[in-house]
Amino acid sequence: MQSFLQFNPTRLWFGQDQIEQLQQELGTNGKRVLLVYGGGSIKKNGVYDAVMEQLTHMQAEVFEMSGVEPNPRLNTVRKGIDICRDKQIELILAVGGGSVIDCVKAISVGVYYDGDVWDIVTRKAVPHKALPFGTVLTLAATGSEMNNISVITHWEKNEKRGWSSSFAYPAFSILDPTYTYSVPMDQTIYGIVDMMSHVLEQYFHRTENTPMIDRFMESVLLTVIEAAPKLLADLNSYEHRATIMYAGTTAFNGLLSSGTDGGDWASHQIEHGLSAVYDIPHGGGLGIVFPNWMKHCAEEDPSRMKKLAIAVFGIDPSDKTDHEIALEGIDALRSFWNSLGAPNRLGDYGIDDSRIEELVHKSFMKDKVGQYKMMTRETVRDILIRSLA
Amino acid sequence: MQSFLQFNPTRLWFGQDQIEQLQQELGTNGKRVLLVYGGGSIKKNGVYDAVMEQLTHMQAEVFEMSGVEPNPRLNTVRKGIDICRDKQIELILAVGGGSVIDCVKAISVGVYYDGDVWDIVTRKAVPHKALPFGTVLTLAATGSEMNNISVITHWEKNEKRGWSSSFAYPAFSILDPTYTYSVPMDQTIYGIVDMMSHVLEQYFHRTENTPMIDRFMESVLLTVIEAAPKLLADLNSYEHRATIMYAGTTAFNGLLSSGTDGGDWASHQIEHGLSAVYDIPHGGGLGIVFPNWMKHCAEEDPSRMKKLAIAVFGIDPSDKTDHEIALEGIDALRSFWNSLGAPNRLGDYGIDDSRIEELVHKSFMKDKVGQYKMMTRETVRDILIRSLA
Repeated sequence: MQSFLQFNPTRLWFGQDQIEQLQQELGTNGKRVLLVYGGGSIKKNGVYDAVMEQLTHMQAEVFEMSGVEPNPRLNTVRKGIDICRDKQIELILAVGGGSVIDCVKAISVGVYYDGDVWDIVTRKAVPHKALPFGTVLTLAATGSEMNNISVITHWEKNEKRGWSSSFAYPAFSILDPTYTYSVPMDQTIYGIVDMMSHVLEQYFHRTENTPMIDRFMESVLLTVIEAAPKLLADLNSYEHRATIMYAGTTAFNGLLSSGTDGGDWASHQIEHGLSAVYDIPHGGGLGIVFPNWMKHCAEEDPSRMKKLAIAVFGIDPSDKTDHEIALEGIDALRSFWNSLGAPNRLGDYGIDDSRIEELVHKSFMKDKVGQYKMMTRETVRDILIRSLA
Repeated sequence: MQSFLQFNPTRLWFGQDQIEQLQQELGTNGKRVLLVYGGGSIKKNGVYDAVMEQLTHMQAEVFEMSGVEPNPRLNTVRKGIDICRDKQIELILAVGGGSVIDCVKAISVGVYYDGDVWDIVTRKAVPHKALPFGTVLTLAATGSEMNNISVITHWEKNEKRGWSSSFAYPAFSILDPTYTYSVPMDQTIYGIVDMMSHVLEQYFHRTENTPMIDRFMESVLLTVIEAAPKLLADLNSYEHRATIMYAGTTAFNGLLSSGTDGGDWASHQIEHGLSAVYDIPHGGGLGIVFPNWMKHCAEEDPSRMKKLAIAVFGIDPSDKTDHEIALEGIDALRSFWNSLGAPNRLGDYGIDDSRIEELVHKSFMKDKVGQYKMMTRETVRDILIRSLA
């Protein structure tokens, strides 16, 4: 086990009608509020009204910024920063999924930074202060509601960059599973692939003696695998929405890396390249890339893929090589995602090999890609080619 | 799943040499420090010196209070409160196990309360402020290092009371597994029984649809069951000390009750009665009482005992009634604890039935005892009688 700090300052209010906690949180954090959201679905499904009811009751002064993109863009962040400065905002409230929350994280640290916020996203500058912000989650997927990580896209440069800061934790997050009832089938599926991918990235670590955290990761995967088909058969099930929503948060709030080296994350880097160039859904890209990354890596060292195959997919290891067991597990994962309706090849998005060198290049926005196996341009190209058809 | 708040403000520094983080924590929390510890073992095993080295380096002004009892007593808490007021202490540092930490929690809230701190312990008064405190853990057992719960004994009244407050979380806790190398065999065993009991109490809840948290609880138990015999065979193993230490914290830091009704806790109430009257080790008492509580409750409803038997003890359920499966699991638990060297009957502590009515009475320090099954004086008496021999 490695040394670690376990700390997460976010207050996670989970359950039906927890929106009422907004009043208490507002009392602590200030009443000049910037409400940030995406394409406006929250106005159709009642979430906007529920939030406004609380804000009105607290006599908050509310400003709004809508139109945050699915892969949130730098220009949108800049616009939010301007509003916060102009209107002397005291609290930002992100109402939406990971994209809206990631955007708000960048706004929150950007407000107190004199230069361009892209410096923070590209890690050229380090934030020292942030506007407090909270979230009202409407999509179970990224885990952004309880971590300090954000991904921002520079659309003109086709660059998608992840960054983090100890100032980028939400002060609070409100998770009401009923707010995800109206999430359509495809977004629900992408969210499930996304949260499972977060666990898998962390699972592919190389730290010895992390038995409890390994079991926790297997527990999250087993729970999602069990609940996902039930949820897709009944999108308005409170219990299954709740199970998936809580799993999504737990998948990526720091806990599952306690004492490990943090895992690999190459599949995420490769997917960031894909969605920077083609703007495909993050969960869709991950579902295609991840099994191919696993197959690629299992050829050298199948140890963790084997462990996963046995513990999560119930593969019988008798009379098989480690590599054979690993491959059966990878096939089981791919079959599971296919059974949900997730795409399994880049061709499903109309992507061919015409821009493959660009995709390889975009995967290397960080100096180092991968940890379970260090990636080179050649290994990334191999994984992308495996992913085409 | 029930609605819940997931929030824990303690910074948990885990790993070898994490004592160095004390400097950073001291910088945040103040330099007039009251060092609180127990019988002085920390002076023999080097922990006192390691702490003092950091405090000296930071030019802290250090006051000391030693002699906190294994079941910490109200008079010791009162003494600590007097020192804090007299010396204008800014930060209390608990160096020890759960008893020292529980004592410091009571001191920390008592400093700002005008009346007798026993009012807070007995829930007649509610704290509104507390002195910040941190912990350096030297015993893996109670989980007090990352929760807001404390148990204080009024020795003259033979009363042992649990209380909690949102102000009673440690600001930080430093967990260096090497600091537990010198914990003797018997205390190591009691700690293992104690942490497993904390998980079991929470496992016996009645909330439907908590699949992930149920698996987390099973994960903690499986991990402790796997690591405990290895640790007892090699008390200086860093990896096994680390596994057990982290399991002990995770067992009781709030996570494992997320979304459940919180579980039962009758066995703890009964044990509090026992150690209030006989001053036996908490873990020793729990190891005796808990299986008998389980057997008692399984007669009416074996559902959770059955689940535990299959998931944790690998009991084959074929061709057995639920009650039979439950009993096999309970026997496996008792056998496991016995195999570690924990006592399995009150007679091992020389306790007979002569004061049994007093023990029954002392179990009812709260109005309500139990939740999986509501206890009456008759049911508690039954469990105590089963526990005698």
